[in-house]
Amino acid sequence: MPAAQRADVVVVGAGLAGLTAARALAAAGLDVAVVEARDRVGGRTVNHDLGDGQVVEAGGQFVGPTQNRVLALATALGIATYPTHDRGARVYVHNGRARRFTGDVMPDPAALPGLALTILRVDRLSRQVPLDAPWRARHARRWDAVPFASWIRHAGAGRGALDLVDVFLASGFGAPATEASLLYALWYIAGMGDERTPGTITRGIATTGGAQEARFVGGSQSLSTTMAQALGDRVTLGAPVRAIEQDASTVTVRSEGRTWIARHAIVALPPALAARIAWTPLLPPQQDALFQRMAFGTLMKCEAVYDEPFWRDDDLSGQGVFRSGSPLCSTFDNTPTSGHPGVLMGFLGGQQWRTWSGRSARERRGAVLRSFAQVAGRRALHPRGYFEQDWTSEEWTRGGPTSAIGPGVLTTLGEWRDRPFGRVRWAGAEHANHWNGYMDGAVRSGEAAARAVLDQED
Amino acid sequence: MPAAQRADVVVVGAGLAGLTAARALAAAGLDVAVVEARDRVGGRTVNHDLGDGQVVEAGGQFVGPTQNRVLALATALGIATYPTHDRGARVYVHNGRARRFTGDVMPDPAALPGLALTILRVDRLSRQVPLDAPWRARHARRWDAVPFASWIRHAGAGRGALDLVDVFLASGFGAPATEASLLYALWYIAGMGDERTPGTITRGIATTGGAQEARFVGGSQSLSTTMAQALGDRVTLGAPVRAIEQDASTVTVRSEGRTWIARHAIVALPPALAARIAWTPLLPPQQDALFQRMAFGTLMKCEAVYDEPFWRDDDLSGQGVFRSGSPLCSTFDNTPTSGHPGVLMGFLGGQQWRTWSGRSARERRGAVLRSFAQVAGRRALHPRGYFEQDWTSEEWTRGGPTSAIGPGVLTTLGEWRDRPFGRVRWAGAEHANHWNGYMDGAVRSGEAAARAVLDQED
Repeated sequence: MPAAQRADVVVVGAGLAGLTAARALAAAGLDVAVVEARDRVGGRTVNHDLGDGQVVEAGGQFVGPTQNRVLALATALGIATYPTHDRGARVYVHNGRARRFTGDVMPDPAALPGLALTILRVDRLSRQVPLDAPWRARHARRWDAVPFASWIRHAGAGRGALDLVDVFLASGFGAPATEASLLYALWYIAGMGDERTPGTITRGIATTGGAQEARFVGGSQSLSTTMAQALGDRVTLGAPVRAIEQDASTVTVRSEGRTWIARHAIVALPPALAARIAWTPLLPPQQDALFQRMAFGTLMKCEAVYDEPFWRDDDLSGQGVFRSGSPLCSTFDNTPTSGHPGVLMGFLGGQQWRTWSGRSARERRGAVLRSFAQVAGRRALHPRGYFEQDWTSEEWTRGGPTSAIGPGVLTTLGEWRDRPFGRVRWAGAEHANHWNGYMDGAVRSGEAAARAVLDQED
Repeated sequence: MPAAQRADVVVVGAGLAGLTAARALAAAGLDVAVVEARDRVGGRTVNHDLGDGQVVEAGGQFVGPTQNRVLALATALGIATYPTHDRGARVYVHNGRARRFTGDVMPDPAALPGLALTILRVDRLSRQVPLDAPWRARHARRWDAVPFASWIRHAGAGRGALDLVDVFLASGFGAPATEASLLYALWYIAGMGDERTPGTITRGIATTGGAQEARFVGGSQSLSTTMAQALGDRVTLGAPVRAIEQDASTVTVRSEGRTWIARHAIVALPPALAARIAWTPLLPPQQDALFQRMAFGTLMKCEAVYDEPFWRDDDLSGQGVFRSGSPLCSTFDNTPTSGHPGVLMGFLGGQQWRTWSGRSARERRGAVLRSFAQVAGRRALHPRGYFEQDWTSEEWTRGGPTSAIGPGVLTTLGEWRDRPFGRVRWAGAEHANHWNGYMDGAVRSGEAAARAVLDQED
């Protein structure tokens, strides 16, 4: 048995949150150890190698205005952004018909007025939700008692509006509006902004001007690999943490055959996975009960690789919105900044994941490529490569992109989300108020956890 | 490292489900090993020692008509039942007033019509839910889209009816009606019967004639201890299972330093805990996603011990229903069959658990005793003993009594609940269709899992 390794702070999880925390602590002169289960860093961000030095993102990838903390981190790391390809027509698919459109007005006159009304009302209500304590909203109990979907339905917005909200949530929550409480949804939307700018749905769903505006040169995972490189041998890979013990003065973190002892721990894992660690003493029952109720969304990404982004020549953006008839909810032109190879990416999440994840890979590939063809033309049926990244199948993630919380939970257990447990603090995209479930949320949570540890050390 | 132990079947969890399965398999001549994390058997049933050879139940305890399988098991084990004390007046507490009543008609004229209507409609709708496949109900999608609470509210049954449903669910689900989908609730109620007798709410909530009708002589845990005794050294205690591996022919179950290898495994754990085991290969993502969405209810039992059940002399049953003003939702006379000492038991669950579990033990004890005094008279304020059993704090349970499932889940992932995973089958009170979350459900699930293994062995 090797001797226990000692540190001031041990960080569990080398995703964006954990590495951001470790970087801040190391910069402040603390001795940090980062323990990661996977043989790579980056958590829910991962680069897929396309050969010839090209990569494409298979996890979290987009960044946009008000996502200041991840943008500041990228600047500090010397990682540039470039605009997501957003020229040319989009395609809207419903009832077996694919129709081009430009601008933001989808060609669905039956659904649009209801959707516009829903967006207007949701944005307005979301301003009444205190980001750091949604359970204190004046109507918190009422809003927490109903699913977001029920509220949309009762608001008379119509079936189309609900369908389209579900399209957005399939990639945003990895779950339909039925699974999230209205209070959770309003809070999530309120967080799609920064300290000065209130959140709006529009910012969440837009490409240019919104959360899908830009990408990182070299792929989003490079944020993590760059941080890990600087942290050097402070980062240990391939070490799944199985047990965490603590007493009044120390935290002991145990992987298989290795042990770290520190004054503080930052656990930067999805709550569902954090609860699977063997804790001594046990997690407080309220915190365990909350983490049990933070089920991960269900999401995979499907990507097809072509010699060139041929659709650009046809004045197509590669962006599609599928109200029905596809395993995908939306697609994007995911071509790297070099302009080749051409890549189309589709989100397969929420309800569609439930329907499609159990089917054969062949059947799914066929349906996904047919959807790509609706968006980009028939040449899309014949990619030179195709891959899927199913985040629910990843042992050290088991879902994506975040944990939408159902009715009744936020108002009764929500305050336990970030509450320190003895010498343990929490980080990760679920532990953020701004841009929850996004890379920016992960960075914010890591910064906050590091700050809290430093405050305590003073 | 001791050699791996070999068996035909390894059963993980020595609660009622696991032991019932092991007993059936051993009776069929198979070589069975039962691996239990705790240093006792019985899972969610546990006897509390009152001294002088008297015990009282601190977990699942009641049994009633149509709970045929647990009753048959008791008969086979030579364990008798005796009626729950059900003579004298009950007490109804609301708005600061405690009122005696007899029969089933609670003295709340404002709430009763709505409650009666709700019961009638729920019972009727529940007949439309196929017990073994609730997602096939004609209106399954609609019923799964809303919380049970929303449906009650929209049915115009009034605030009182919802309050009283929540009183029942606090001990039935360990969660308020907000957290369960209507479809789940209808399915749960449909299961409160047997193969010949449709389930009804009334059977679920009644004492005489219902699910609280009787208790087991020697306490409910004696079912498990008796089975474990017969299984002898086939049962290993104090061995938390941390990992389960399987290939085409064997299952390997690993505790800390011990290993079992078998042809089949039956995992008889609450789903939330089963998902915390390290699985190789991983649990299918759909099953993991479902188990993530089967959060355990939050429930504790509070019991006070007196020299005698003095309330009986005042013609009080010890049974109370608290619509408001108490940490408890309901109380029972929990005196052992010998008639002494006198014991009052209260359920503190669901919403009330969220409110009260974080307060000081002293404050909670005071409030619970004041509730007991409303039900049994002022002498209840001065017990000779008082104890609480908080099932959410138990490392190897982490909640109680079952996992109410929220909107959107049953119709999309429900079919994964009992689906065998390779050579692993599932058991436990959550894996039952009749009397889900009850001892009878646990026994049924254990019998079914054993039967499935035996069928496969043939």
